Amino acid sequence: MSLTATKPSLAEMVEALGQIVGKEFVFVDNETLENYSHDETEDLHFLPDVVIKPANTEQVSQVMRYCNEHLIPVTARGAGTGLSGAALPVRKGVLMSMERFNKILNIDERNHQATVEPGVVTEFLQEAVKEKGLFYPVDPASKGSCFIGGNVSQSSGGPRAVKYGTTRDYILNLEVVLPSGDVIWTGANVLKYSTGYNLTQLMVGSEGTLGIITKIVVKLRTYPKNNLVLLVPFASAEQACEAVSAIFMAGLVPSCLEFMERDAIDWAIDYTGSSVVVPAHIQAHLLIELDGNEMDLLYQDAERLYGVLEQYEVGDILLGESAQQKEELWLLRRKAPYAVRHNSVYKEEDTVVPRAHLPQLLKGVKDIGNRYGFKSVCYGHAGDGNLHVNIIKAGLSEEDWHSQLPKAITEIFELCVSLGGTISGEHGIGFVQKPYIGIAVSDLQLEIMRGIKRVFDPNNILNPDKIF
Amino acid sequence: MSLTATKPSLAEMVEALGQIVGKEFVFVDNETLENYSHDETEDLHFLPDVVIKPANTEQVSQVMRYCNEHLIPVTARGAGTGLSGAALPVRKGVLMSMERFNKILNIDERNHQATVEPGVVTEFLQEAVKEKGLFYPVDPASKGSCFIGGNVSQSSGGPRAVKYGTTRDYILNLEVVLPSGDVIWTGANVLKYSTGYNLTQLMVGSEGTLGIITKIVVKLRTYPKNNLVLLVPFASAEQACEAVSAIFMAGLVPSCLEFMERDAIDWAIDYTGSSVVVPAHIQAHLLIELDGNEMDLLYQDAERLYGVLEQYEVGDILLGESAQQKEELWLLRRKAPYAVRHNSVYKEEDTVVPRAHLPQLLKGVKDIGNRYGFKSVCYGHAGDGNLHVNIIKAGLSEEDWHSQLPKAITEIFELCVSLGGTISGEHGIGFVQKPYIGIAVSDLQLEIMRGIKRVFDPNNILNPDKIF
Repeated sequence: MSLTATKPSLAEMVEALGQIVGKEFVFVDNETLENYSHDETEDLHFLPDVVIKPANTEQVSQVMRYCNEHLIPVTARGAGTGLSGAALPVRKGVLMSMERFNKILNIDERNHQATVEPGVVTEFLQEAVKEKGLFYPVDPASKGSCFIGGNVSQSSGGPRAVKYGTTRDYILNLEVVLPSGDVIWTGANVLKYSTGYNLTQLMVGSEGTLGIITKIVVKLRTYPKNNLVLLVPFASAEQACEAVSAIFMAGLVPSCLEFMERDAIDWAIDYTGSSVVVPAHIQAHLLIELDGNEMDLLYQDAERLYGVLEQYEVGDILLGESAQQKEELWLLRRKAPYAVRHNSVYKEEDTVVPRAHLPQLLKGVKDIGNRYGFKSVCYGHAGDGNLHVNIIKAGLSEEDWHSQLPKAITEIFELCVSLGGTISGEHGIGFVQKPYIGIAVSDLQLEIMRGIKRVFDPNNILNPDKIF
Repeated sequence: MSLTATKPSLAEMVEALGQIVGKEFVFVDNETLENYSHDETEDLHFLPDVVIKPANTEQVSQVMRYCNEHLIPVTARGAGTGLSGAALPVRKGVLMSMERFNKILNIDERNHQATVEPGVVTEFLQEAVKEKGLFYPVDPASKGSCFIGGNVSQSSGGPRAVKYGTTRDYILNLEVVLPSGDVIWTGANVLKYSTGYNLTQLMVGSEGTLGIITKIVVKLRTYPKNNLVLLVPFASAEQACEAVSAIFMAGLVPSCLEFMERDAIDWAIDYTGSSVVVPAHIQAHLLIELDGNEMDLLYQDAERLYGVLEQYEVGDILLGESAQQKEELWLLRRKAPYAVRHNSVYKEEDTVVPRAHLPQLLKGVKDIGNRYGFKSVCYGHAGDGNLHVNIIKAGLSEEDWHSQLPKAITEIFELCVSLGGTISGEHGIGFVQKPYIGIAVSDLQLEIMRGIKRVFDPNNILNPDKIF
């Protein structure tokens, strides 16, 4: 760390940054600072000193050079839809919004690749490539508003990961501005890469702590022409979890395989006004999507799926065939998080285990809840073993909520790790899971991660106080 | 680097290592040293001081602790099938053969995972999981003899990568002994991981320079029940390359899509005594495999494939339906490398570009050959844009071979990079591509890689002089 650096005054900082990105893209007014002080993680607020909106790689490079010289913390921000607080400027300094990096630079149909800026909304990319018959499968719940750059930083997943993989699996190459202001490409635009350490994969999921991503080359697939959606009610939540494993054992690979426990679907039905009726004895649902090109084959797969489900106590299966039917069924899963938010103060954990261990995880979460006196609402990407556990404040006193919750979360995470899993599957560690990382990651691993951080960012100016 | 360390005498080293791994697993005889002095990379030989064969993680840990303390280079070795010289003990020291790490520790059918030791032969793993209806798809050409640990270290691919991905895509978690002797697990046994920097992916492809891999958790799929193989002759090699892109554009995803130029198939026919007859005007072949569960659908896909191929000047397509027919067609591609070795001194380059740029790459390679006066034989994984370029010595003088070849290779690699590609898709950089890495990887990237190396291995004892 440079010992001679002195932090400039706010006025000096504004002046210098304005010269780089243009005065009109430097903000210090309260409203803007407040708007960029939070993401979708609980009710956390951290005001930055200044918000800037650079337009291109060269500007980002100059900003980083300036901030590195003056040891000013820089936190890059996508659309602010994160759930781990990774984009919160907890050490103040510069909040760098990537919202002007909003262009799809190239869709290379022949190579099934696209080059995009990090501020492109994920769904916008999906729609643009779909027009050319191409498919960017990764669809986080926030796909309508989140940025692809945020997806890369957090290694985001979503329901389709079970068949198609997470963001990580679609990133071929990244343009990155280092804290020094230097610019690198991390790899090459190729499907196979064995040319030194894989800096591309290291960057994915590094939560903005190693560099600022300014261009992204993604891999595309061809768009599957058809799909079917099934909503399967189970008399037992544990049987629903067991069925997940059995479906894969039967050789089926659904494009989505989502779990919702009873409360999740009840709350979602209330919240959306859905006409779906759930009989009293039903404890959980699986929402299953099959996709492919040939409808005949999809119906064959659906038949095989019914065969697998026969061994469990299931209620009437709802089959979505028309676009409207499918949308109605999906709505319940998609709106479940909003229904939870609407109902109570809550805290969401992004647990992940090998998928056959989901029943133990679910049972363990409930046991822990019973001991600590909280209710939880669980849903998630069961095909990946990725269960979102929403701990509901409801009846808990303010004191219990703050004193007991960390202990309960610790127990939940310890359970995940004991089952071969870890504490975040797709939300990242960011700020809010940081106190718990030691449960999943050993001191030695953390030491290595800190060492890697120092290689990229010796002055620790980039998104400090995140992950570890 | 510790300045007080003194290198022990060979006798001291043998004594100390014998106490750790057992005397009978420490070798200094000439025959053993010679056997472990080379891999399948050209005719390079580097004798180690000593060969050891540890049996478990604890022994590896103790060896690393000893060698780190005494600054003794350690090179881990799988089956010695590498093509980049990554396992050559170029700085002498300890050659650590992982051949006793040959156990499949667990096949977890319900989670579609297996835990294996690094010395398991790749095909042995494939057969073992196939018995349970499971599929480990990655099949490097050397699958019958190579070790899975070597595959992880080199990020190996093979023909099926085009549909199923490379080794990288199947590695969930690794047990790694660090140069210090400390042992870590890099991640968790889960399909999604967003819990700090992805050390698992960093380790894959790091060519034994960061740690010794002692356990590997792989992801499995269900075994596809059927396949079809087609050998398609093209009047023009460039049209064959163009067809590759067109096949994907049509929405087909073959499980293999291999390219062979005329000489490759002629040499392979001679070498294998195959009965396949190639008409005079044919310049190249594509070997295409379609896989899946339903034969009906495979024949439908084959029909669509014929439709795509109609727009090119193709000869009679050979369709392999029986196991014997398929084997006969595959044999030509599999034996092409052996046919080249059998015919001439050669040097193989593992070029990779975005697949639509294959025609430019092929044409450029031939142009460069014409200028430098060498013939080349090209084949490879066209679906991934991964072309193995075999530069044939044949008529070249010994002097030209040594003086001109590096210039020609430099031009070939520069061409790859100019097409958006890189210098190794699946063989790694190792020792022999090291002089060329600067063509594909910038000084800044290399500086970062060296920094990462120092984090893991501050004394540079682990496989020194490799990659960079």
